[in-house]
Amino acid sequence: MSKPSIPKGTRDFIPKEMAGRNFIFNTAKSVFKKFGFQQIETPAIENLKTLTGKYGDEGDQLMFKLLNRGDKFKKAVNGISEHSKESDFAELALKYDLTVPFARFVVQNRNELTFPFKRYQIQPVWRADRPQKGRYREFYQCDVDVVGTDSLLCEVEFIQIFNEVLTALKIPGFSIKLNNRKILAGIAEVVGEADKIIDITVAIDKLDKIGLDKVNEEMIAKGVSQDAINKLRPVIKLSGSLDGKIASLKSFLKESQIGMKGVEELEFIFNYASNLNVAHSLELDVTLARGLNYYTGAIFEVTCEGFKGSICGGGRYDGLTDLFGLKGVSGVGVSFGADRIYDVLLDNNLFPENGLEALDVFFVNFGEKEERFVMPLVSELRKENVSVEVYPSAAKMKKQMSYANAKDARFVVLVGESEIESGLIRVKNMESGDQTDITFDVFMDIMKK
Amino acid sequence: MSKPSIPKGTRDFIPKEMAGRNFIFNTAKSVFKKFGFQQIETPAIENLKTLTGKYGDEGDQLMFKLLNRGDKFKKAVNGISEHSKESDFAELALKYDLTVPFARFVVQNRNELTFPFKRYQIQPVWRADRPQKGRYREFYQCDVDVVGTDSLLCEVEFIQIFNEVLTALKIPGFSIKLNNRKILAGIAEVVGEADKIIDITVAIDKLDKIGLDKVNEEMIAKGVSQDAINKLRPVIKLSGSLDGKIASLKSFLKESQIGMKGVEELEFIFNYASNLNVAHSLELDVTLARGLNYYTGAIFEVTCEGFKGSICGGGRYDGLTDLFGLKGVSGVGVSFGADRIYDVLLDNNLFPENGLEALDVFFVNFGEKEERFVMPLVSELRKENVSVEVYPSAAKMKKQMSYANAKDARFVVLVGESEIESGLIRVKNMESGDQTDITFDVFMDIMKK
Repeated sequence: MSKPSIPKGTRDFIPKEMAGRNFIFNTAKSVFKKFGFQQIETPAIENLKTLTGKYGDEGDQLMFKLLNRGDKFKKAVNGISEHSKESDFAELALKYDLTVPFARFVVQNRNELTFPFKRYQIQPVWRADRPQKGRYREFYQCDVDVVGTDSLLCEVEFIQIFNEVLTALKIPGFSIKLNNRKILAGIAEVVGEADKIIDITVAIDKLDKIGLDKVNEEMIAKGVSQDAINKLRPVIKLSGSLDGKIASLKSFLKESQIGMKGVEELEFIFNYASNLNVAHSLELDVTLARGLNYYTGAIFEVTCEGFKGSICGGGRYDGLTDLFGLKGVSGVGVSFGADRIYDVLLDNNLFPENGLEALDVFFVNFGEKEERFVMPLVSELRKENVSVEVYPSAAKMKKQMSYANAKDARFVVLVGESEIESGLIRVKNMESGDQTDITFDVFMDIMKK
Repeated sequence: MSKPSIPKGTRDFIPKEMAGRNFIFNTAKSVFKKFGFQQIETPAIENLKTLTGKYGDEGDQLMFKLLNRGDKFKKAVNGISEHSKESDFAELALKYDLTVPFARFVVQNRNELTFPFKRYQIQPVWRADRPQKGRYREFYQCDVDVVGTDSLLCEVEFIQIFNEVLTALKIPGFSIKLNNRKILAGIAEVVGEADKIIDITVAIDKLDKIGLDKVNEEMIAKGVSQDAINKLRPVIKLSGSLDGKIASLKSFLKESQIGMKGVEELEFIFNYASNLNVAHSLELDVTLARGLNYYTGAIFEVTCEGFKGSICGGGRYDGLTDLFGLKGVSGVGVSFGADRIYDVLLDNNLFPENGLEALDVFFVNFGEKEERFVMPLVSELRKENVSVEVYPSAAKMKKQMSYANAKDARFVVLVGESEIESGLIRVKNMESGDQTDITFDVFMDIMKK
C-alpha cells in the first residue's frame, strides 16, 4: 500500500483551516445578505461547449475535461487518428470560473429570477495551472453580482461592501482602486491608437510589476507609435489629489466622448461614496485594467498592506449574457480572493483569538458510573446551545486533558465519585487556570451568559 | 446560439432552493457543533487509484474520470489498441462518496488530527448513475463521523444527534432503526450458514420492498439451505415490544458468541438512550443491513412518515482506514440525505413560513434627490444588521413593488419629496398591509427589535 496522496494543486482542509475559511465566508455572507444578495449554486460540471472559447486558448487548455464513458469512449477510441483532440474524448468539463456559468445560469433560469438580480456564489473552480505558492488547481471563488441594471448605485454599494467586509475582517490598510474602461478607451482614442486599446491597457496594467520602460517596450512591440507613447506618459503618471487627477483627466480627454463619459461615471461614484463616508479607502488608478476585456464601465481592484497583488477585483460588464443569446443585460460584480485573504489573516495573526471553533465545555470521563451521571447534564448544556464533549472512555487523565487542549476547550469539568456525593462539580477555566467547586445549576447560569 | 443547458443529472440552485438547502445544512451544523464535531473538506478530485476498487465494479464504472491532458493524452492516443481502457486516459476522478476520501484524509493527515477525531463534511459527490426523480449525478452528502474509539457512547450520541436535527427540522414521525452487524453474523451462524452471511443479509434487507417469499427465493438461489430458511423465519418476523424482541434474540442466538455480543451492544445502546430520553423514536430492526459490508457493529437507518426509503443511515466500521494502511482504527458515522430531507420539508410545507431569506426593508426609489436622502438611512439600518435594499433606479412604482414582493420584503419604506419635508417616512408592513408615517428614529427602534 503506497502512501495516500491527493492530486497536485488540490488541498485537504483540516478543522483549523476550515474554521478560518468559514470565518471569512461567514463574514462576507452576512454583509452580502444585508445588501439583499441571495446565494445560488451551479453544478461543478458544465457542458464542454458552454465553456469552450470563453477563456481564450489558454483557458481551453487548462480546463479539466471529463472522460467520455462507455459507448462514447469506445467510439472515440475507434475513431482515433493522428488528429484526435482532447475534445473528441470529452463532452463535459469542470467549471473554470463562476462568471461564465453565472451568465449561463441567468439566461437559462431567467423566468424564475427577479431582476435586477443580486446574487452571491461561493464555490470551487478548477484550472490545470502549474501549481505554485498560493495558486491551486482547485480553489474557491466568492463572487457577488447585480445583473439587469446599469445604475451606478450598484458600484457605490460594492464600495460599501468592500469596506464593510474588509473592515470586519480587520484587513490592514486596504485600498480600493477604481478605474473605468471608458477612460481607457478615451485615452487610446486621444493618443490616436483607438484600435490598440487592448494592447495599451494590457501593457499599462503591468506598470506596478515591470515599470514604465518595460511597459513602453511592450507597447512598441505591439505597434503602438512612439508619438502615442509620449502622449500617454502624463496620464500614466497621473498623481496627486483626486480632484487634481480628475481635472487632468478632463483636460486630457476633452476631445473623447467616451473618455468624458468615463470620467463622469467615475466622479459620480466618488461623490456618492464620499457622501456615504466610504471614500477614504478609495483611489483613482488609471493604469488599472485587470486584463479583462469584458469590462465596459467601472473596474475595481483591492490591495492591502503587506501583500503583493490584489485581494479583490471586479467591474461592470454589458455583454456577459450575450454569450448565451440574451442581449441588453448590464451587470456589475466583484470577487473576493478567499485564499489570499486567508493568507493575509494568517500572516497578520488576525483570526479571532480564542480559537475559531473552540469547544465550550469538556467533561473528563472517570468511568461508567460517572459518565452515566454526567450525560444528562451534558444534554442540559447542549439545550442551551453550549458545545460540549465527554471523552468517550475513561482514558488516562493526561490523554483526556491533551484532547481538551487540542479542542480549545474553555472549561473542563471534573465529576468523580466525590463530586457526585457532594453535589458540587469541579470546573476548571482553561484560560485563567482557576478551579472552583460549584453546583451544576450555577455552572449552567454561567454558561447561559 | 443554442439554448444554454447543463449536463443531465446536475442542477442549478436558484435563491429559493439554495435558502432551503442552507436551512437544512445550518440546522444540522449547529447540532454537530454542539456535540464537538468540526468541519473538514477534501478535494473534489482524487487520484483515480485512491478510489478504484473501493466501490465494486459498478462504482468503478459510474465514476467520473478526468481526461489526461497534453502529453499524457497524446501518449494514451499513441498507445491505443482494442484493449484500451478508460483508465488509460485518466489518472484523476471526481469523488464518488465522502467515506473513502475521509479514510484517505484520516491516514494522510493523522499527525495533525486529534483522536478520537470527530468531523462533519458537507460536499458534493458525483456518480454517473442513470438520472431519475430524486437521483442526481451531482449531489451533496452530509456525513458525521467519529474515528479512533470503539466506545458505544458514540452510537448513543448519534441517536441524540438524529433526534435533535430531525426534531429541529420538524420531520414528521421519524423512526430511528437500529441493528447490529454482529447479530446478523450470529443469525447466519445459528442457522448453519455462517459463510453466507452476506447473501443472507442482502436478501433480508429487502424484506420491506419485496416481501418474505421473494426474500426466501433469493436466498435459495444463492444456495442457502431450506433448513436454514426455516430456522430464519422467526427471527425475520420478530415483532412486539423491545424487551420481547431482545429476549427472543437472546434465546435464538445463545450458541453464538458474536451474536450474543451484538445483542449486548444493542441493549447497552437502547438502555443508555432510554436514560437520556431519546429512545422514543428508536426501534430494533433485525432485517436492517443497508447492504454495506464494511459495517462491523451498530447499523442505523432513519425513515419518516410519508416518505418511501430512508432519510439517514450509518453504522460502525472497524476497517475503513485499513484501505490506506492504517489498522486498528474503529469508527462510527452517519449520513443525512440532504436531497431527501429537502423533499420531505417541501412536501410537508415545513420550510420556515416567513420566507427563508426575506428582505427586512425595501426602499422605493423616487429619483436621484430622494435616493441620496435615503442612502445614509439605509447605511444606518445595515449597521444594525438589518437587510435593506433600495431599488437602483426610479422605475415605475408597480415594478418596484413587484420586486419588493419577489424579495419577500417585510417592510417597504416610501420617502418622497413630501416625506423629506415633513421629516416622517412612510412605512408599509407587507404582512398586515398597515401603513404609518413615523420618524426614521422610531423605525430604527422597531427594526432593532
